[in-house]
Amino acid sequence: MTATTSSSTSAWPSRADATTGPLEDSTLEQVNSWWRAANYLSVGQIYLLNNPLLRTPLSKDDVKPRLLGHWGTTPGLNFLYAHMNRVIRERELSAFYLTGPGHGGPGLVANTYLEGTYSQTYSDITEDEEGLRRLFRQFSFPGGIPSHVAPETPGSIHEGGELGYSLSHAYGAVFDNPDLLAFTVVGDGEAETGPLATSWHSNKWLNPSRDGVVLPVLHLNGYKIANPTVLARIPDDELADLMRGYGHEPYFFTGGFSEDTAEEFRSTHRRFAELLDEVLDEIARIKARAAQDPDGQRPRWPMIVFRTPKGWTGPKTIDGKRAEGSWRSHQVPLASARDTDEHLHELEAWLQSYRAEELFDATGRLKDEIRALAPHGHLRMSANPHTNGGLLLQDLRMPDWHDFAVDVETPGAPVEEPTRILGQLLREVVRLNPDNFRMFGPDETASNRLQSVYDVTAKQWNAEYEPTDDDDHLARAGRVMEMLSEHQCQGWLEGYLLTGRHGMMSSYEAFIHIVDSMFNQHAKWLEVTNDIPWRRPLASLNYLLSSHVWRQDHNGFTHQDPGFIDLVANKKAEIVRVYLPPDTNTLLSTFDHVLRSRQYVNVVIAGKQPGPSFLSASEAANHCARGLGIWDWAGTEVDGESPDVVLACAGDIPTLETLAAADLLRQHLPDLKVRVVNVVDLMRLQDEKEHPHGLSHAEFDTIFTTDRPVIFGYHGYPWLIHRLTYRRTGHANLHVRGYKEEGTTTTPFDMVMLNDLDRYHLVMDVIDRTPGLAQRHGGLRQRMVDARLDARQYTREHGEDIPVVRDWVWPDVGETATQEGGPNATRVTAGDNE
Amino acid sequence: MTATTSSSTSAWPSRADATTGPLEDSTLEQVNSWWRAANYLSVGQIYLLNNPLLRTPLSKDDVKPRLLGHWGTTPGLNFLYAHMNRVIRERELSAFYLTGPGHGGPGLVANTYLEGTYSQTYSDITEDEEGLRRLFRQFSFPGGIPSHVAPETPGSIHEGGELGYSLSHAYGAVFDNPDLLAFTVVGDGEAETGPLATSWHSNKWLNPSRDGVVLPVLHLNGYKIANPTVLARIPDDELADLMRGYGHEPYFFTGGFSEDTAEEFRSTHRRFAELLDEVLDEIARIKARAAQDPDGQRPRWPMIVFRTPKGWTGPKTIDGKRAEGSWRSHQVPLASARDTDEHLHELEAWLQSYRAEELFDATGRLKDEIRALAPHGHLRMSANPHTNGGLLLQDLRMPDWHDFAVDVETPGAPVEEPTRILGQLLREVVRLNPDNFRMFGPDETASNRLQSVYDVTAKQWNAEYEPTDDDDHLARAGRVMEMLSEHQCQGWLEGYLLTGRHGMMSSYEAFIHIVDSMFNQHAKWLEVTNDIPWRRPLASLNYLLSSHVWRQDHNGFTHQDPGFIDLVANKKAEIVRVYLPPDTNTLLSTFDHVLRSRQYVNVVIAGKQPGPSFLSASEAANHCARGLGIWDWAGTEVDGESPDVVLACAGDIPTLETLAAADLLRQHLPDLKVRVVNVVDLMRLQDEKEHPHGLSHAEFDTIFTTDRPVIFGYHGYPWLIHRLTYRRTGHANLHVRGYKEEGTTTTPFDMVMLNDLDRYHLVMDVIDRTPGLAQRHGGLRQRMVDARLDARQYTREHGEDIPVVRDWVWPDVGETATQEGGPNATRVTAGDNE
Repeated sequence: MTATTSSSTSAWPSRADATTGPLEDSTLEQVNSWWRAANYLSVGQIYLLNNPLLRTPLSKDDVKPRLLGHWGTTPGLNFLYAHMNRVIRERELSAFYLTGPGHGGPGLVANTYLEGTYSQTYSDITEDEEGLRRLFRQFSFPGGIPSHVAPETPGSIHEGGELGYSLSHAYGAVFDNPDLLAFTVVGDGEAETGPLATSWHSNKWLNPSRDGVVLPVLHLNGYKIANPTVLARIPDDELADLMRGYGHEPYFFTGGFSEDTAEEFRSTHRRFAELLDEVLDEIARIKARAAQDPDGQRPRWPMIVFRTPKGWTGPKTIDGKRAEGSWRSHQVPLASARDTDEHLHELEAWLQSYRAEELFDATGRLKDEIRALAPHGHLRMSANPHTNGGLLLQDLRMPDWHDFAVDVETPGAPVEEPTRILGQLLREVVRLNPDNFRMFGPDETASNRLQSVYDVTAKQWNAEYEPTDDDDHLARAGRVMEMLSEHQCQGWLEGYLLTGRHGMMSSYEAFIHIVDSMFNQHAKWLEVTNDIPWRRPLASLNYLLSSHVWRQDHNGFTHQDPGFIDLVANKKAEIVRVYLPPDTNTLLSTFDHVLRSRQYVNVVIAGKQPGPSFLSASEAANHCARGLGIWDWAGTEVDGESPDVVLACAGDIPTLETLAAADLLRQHLPDLKVRVVNVVDLMRLQDEKEHPHGLSHAEFDTIFTTDRPVIFGYHGYPWLIHRLTYRRTGHANLHVRGYKEEGTTTTPFDMVMLNDLDRYHLVMDVIDRTPGLAQRHGGLRQRMVDARLDARQYTREHGEDIPVVRDWVWPDVGETATQEGGPNATRVTAGDNE
Repeated sequence: MTATTSSSTSAWPSRADATTGPLEDSTLEQVNSWWRAANYLSVGQIYLLNNPLLRTPLSKDDVKPRLLGHWGTTPGLNFLYAHMNRVIRERELSAFYLTGPGHGGPGLVANTYLEGTYSQTYSDITEDEEGLRRLFRQFSFPGGIPSHVAPETPGSIHEGGELGYSLSHAYGAVFDNPDLLAFTVVGDGEAETGPLATSWHSNKWLNPSRDGVVLPVLHLNGYKIANPTVLARIPDDELADLMRGYGHEPYFFTGGFSEDTAEEFRSTHRRFAELLDEVLDEIARIKARAAQDPDGQRPRWPMIVFRTPKGWTGPKTIDGKRAEGSWRSHQVPLASARDTDEHLHELEAWLQSYRAEELFDATGRLKDEIRALAPHGHLRMSANPHTNGGLLLQDLRMPDWHDFAVDVETPGAPVEEPTRILGQLLREVVRLNPDNFRMFGPDETASNRLQSVYDVTAKQWNAEYEPTDDDDHLARAGRVMEMLSEHQCQGWLEGYLLTGRHGMMSSYEAFIHIVDSMFNQHAKWLEVTNDIPWRRPLASLNYLLSSHVWRQDHNGFTHQDPGFIDLVANKKAEIVRVYLPPDTNTLLSTFDHVLRSRQYVNVVIAGKQPGPSFLSASEAANHCARGLGIWDWAGTEVDGESPDVVLACAGDIPTLETLAAADLLRQHLPDLKVRVVNVVDLMRLQDEKEHPHGLSHAEFDTIFTTDRPVIFGYHGYPWLIHRLTYRRTGHANLHVRGYKEEGTTTTPFDMVMLNDLDRYHLVMDVIDRTPGLAQRHGGLRQRMVDARLDARQYTREHGEDIPVVRDWVWPDVGETATQEGGPNATRVTAGDNE
């Protein structure tokens, strides 16, 4: 294990400190041989079904029937890998290779194989001719491996299927790993994406002494699928300005051969090797300075602009058109190799140009003198344990959440801001786990009321300071990471988790959609790794979504979207969990659970506004363990009799309205047998066959009945409740009220009224849907209509909610405390959400 | 109307050309008065319920009970607005103001009111004291207006609720509007987002002679909600490098007053006025050069770095803590103004500091000498017709899509790539609409087989050229806009549509999730504007999602996600449409429809791989008009009898598998009465009460029956079909097969098998679910199981699909054409998707 969290600088020697000799031509020759071998194996994977060492003339039957994969970026990736191996050996660096252009998969698989890791991981892919045949055949082949740097690839923490997150992942990986180098290749296509464009700024957060190093290599191969890339088509001085503007010092390298001579090869390799040494020496100097002056100014970190021809060393022209150095090399340059003699022969000549016979011995094994370039053991980038984070993952030290629980003597009191209390729990988590837990968020940790964590930590900030920053909780090192980019926060967190640490992200509910596609990709990673035994489980990715759809008094319609739950519910049941804790203690219990969990994406949605507390700590623990349950104290059931109607709820605001409706029913229809059900773990609603948390039909029917009306107040778009329950016996009796995508408003009750989720509507629903009530209680129904109109009218006159609503508390509290000034009469107040 | 599409340069005079005199102090005084008035009205909106002109001492009852809004960014926005008015008047510019920090809403509303536009638009907000009272009261008030620069705000095309898209919208607005200036304020919080970080590069696409001008103003007010901003905390030279690296020439301005003297005010205004003149003169020079040399090099466009204190002119300190120039000014600095005398008096003093009595006359009307700063008529930024694009929108000139339809003599032939034929239709759309239709996409126009458009246009590209670019369809001006950023493409397209033009975006299906949140915001804009009479309808936002979930042979699991449909279905039914055309002619008919439509988001999902054609042009037209229908030719119903089973399908691949299943049933169970239903307009499945396209229950029951098993092969996650149909009579009989989030594979049939959507499974479903079949046809069921295993095994051996599947064609074709070499025997071939 090379994992270490000390901030020693000996991990970062200069070349002069690490070696004595000059850079020999023989070493460069070794690097070149490695490169040739990796290129050969890459081409072989894309094209060959058989005959991996060309022991017989290449025939059409040796070529795969379906040619899939991406050649264009691969030789550049291989070139860099070979050179990194040299410096890792010389300096004994702990490094890994992060491949932005993930479809360079054949290259990374090739290097992994050359390092021996692949055969150690997959015993059927042996280091001999038959192993080569299988290696080639399995690539992009049914039942084989994907074409990207997928979870199946040892050494990968970044598939690169969706572009834009390589630098964010890299920075996430090196936070709290001061001796780790993330060698990160950024594709010039990827560089056009928004998330990548902002991720260069990550260096303003990196702590040079406590965190590791990201070495970005901007791979300018010039072309995307069918277009040149922007950064390859601006002047070098403009590109240098851009990189300096991002806080980097750029080092330029241009590859490509004017002629195919050994001397040209050697000099090219020497130029890059010397540049890489210079860059690593500069990193060593920065680390040494940071060790001496941990509070020093942000350094100007080096980065490399690596300009090489797309499809370098591939066919120069194909069918009379330029291939090397063109977008035509993006995928499979000789697409007709199985169909035409011309392409077949060109493929054979291309493969032969790497002179495999000089690289592999008679058995098909890489020759020892080339193999010697690979670093040893865990220093191989493909075997760095940080890239299989579950290996390094340690349990979080957790405080007892009961210590932070609020005392609930009677349901409805006290009134608390749930996330503020959660902040106290998180403060202790931070204190107990000073180097493997971080909180990420786009400028919303305080806005979401988690500021207790600032008692023990700060926001990490390595940009400039001003004298007035004293009380702003900024520091060179801290556990809270805030940048106004959900992409960046999510990418950092993913990188942090993938390398075996713990974390969470807090965000406004509506804007978590910004990272929908990143969530999708991380979920897919987890789904796949569940079936890869050597990938060890990771800590879960935990979202806290506050400032939710129902309380956007400041912000209105653009800030109202509860649909992230729907997106999450589309992913495999085995990895997604959605929690809607209705009060403070259930939030604490939920968070205690999700922070301990593994290999999930947990979505927790909880309000930051003051709200009543309903469950004591032990009640909350039981309720969360069950995931849903009947709240006897809120209902009016009679022992041994079936209820007349079920009021169900999920989410803090729907719970409040449902209880207020139950209160109205209790007052006005005291004989009605009402059952109140609260759902905290949404996936409990599903069939047990669909989700591991799902209830059996028998359990579900016991709680919801099979034949009584169920009026369900739900936090999000109402459809989801139908979707989760459509196989339930009583589904036809289910009536869901939720968010309806209706306009804007600025008082809390006006918001629920606008969406017809208010207490008056719920009572009307009960009257309309419970047999016999409509005829007998038309008067009550009309009073509900009138009360609603009054409430609406009041907000329009006064700009705040009508007191009867605003000051409503659950009657058990109210009996003792609704007098003006009573201790529990604290209003569920108007908000100050940002 | 100032809308003009000529590329005259007279629209861009230098100051020397436009005016004769020097910049007088009296003009600067006028600018300052405007600024004071706008600031006063902004503060008034945030705080005041009554007493708008402070005619009596401010009382607590004059203050709103809930103080909502954002002060911090507002004075800077107002400063810029006032200065822009001067230069617009002097130069007669056609400009509009795009507010990245959208929560500066009070500022934009204030300026709009000062210009007179607000009262013209909303007749109850009059230009007098009572109008002021209403203006103040309505802001962030129930039944009033939202706090952002929402659609309700005249002159807005950008709400700014979700941050990151101001520059993309601005560029979209000026494409093909050569005389239009988008004055675009980028917040320094927003500047941290990914989409904004890459959108600076838009200048590599802008054509200096045919397109208009974006003038970005980076508003460095230094703070987000609770943190400093990155760009405010890097050295000026680094920021200058960054802007130069983005291709801009930065002009730096620092505001703020060291002392509150008239001289300090004047000199500050003069500094900014001179800087703005210099910038506009440089723009004038660039436009003049471009007019003379339309193919010249990309110019270095100016931009302004505008560093001013957050909450400028607001309270310096509050409760002993710094307010002006701090994040504490972000929202409502005097939050207790209704509760404490101290805050109340500070608020009064703050309001008085603007000396409203000098600005408004006795009736409360803005004094004429200040009003004179406003430009006339449509030159007012709040009245620029480009900001109400529906006013300028002209119908697209459409070719007759039948001219491109393929001849279908028998269902199943010919085999075509549907999007390639669509490309021919689009080519004519481009030809007929040379300046108000553009196609946007992240490098995928050709990949999605639309390249026929390059017969008549090119990809617009104003970065560097290389000699080898000749056949790459790049040009200084063109209708196709490709950047490898879905955010940028979406933002450009939105800006283009919002200013009254037409367009579409093509993308890989999986990665359209990257813009989920942008779709959400645009959908909300459309939802709101449907209720704003003066906002005229826009052309629809049209997505073509190709390279879809079922054909990712190259790419695998990361490229497989059909969930965008689910996201879209969450938005209001009145604005969303989802189409799944099963073949070429239905795709043509669908696109003809969506391009003509207004005020929708249309999602069209269609394959680019070769696929059979089933419907003739007239059949396709009828099928699309109905949205779904029974395919008699595919079923085995008997006139006058009910079918035994319904096979339904939506999406090209599910349709293919469903037809193949129908073929198998016809062969093996010739007496079974099978109905085949194809759905092209997904929203038809919904209840007519839920969606305008919804079928009545009677219609639905006629097609799907109320009591027969319905086996539904669906393109996306199966849940959606249940969600759309859960109120239908026969819902319990519905069995949906769709995408299941299962791994990767590299042959087409292996993919459908992996998700159990294959023809064999569909036949098994029919046997299992049609009463009586399971007992009698166990042997056939087992043959299906075996056939499936054979197919699976074949792909694993050969790397391609088993011939019986790969070469399958609908039997009416097969009878004449399955002989080897027959004209219609073209395989549905293995793919070359990128």
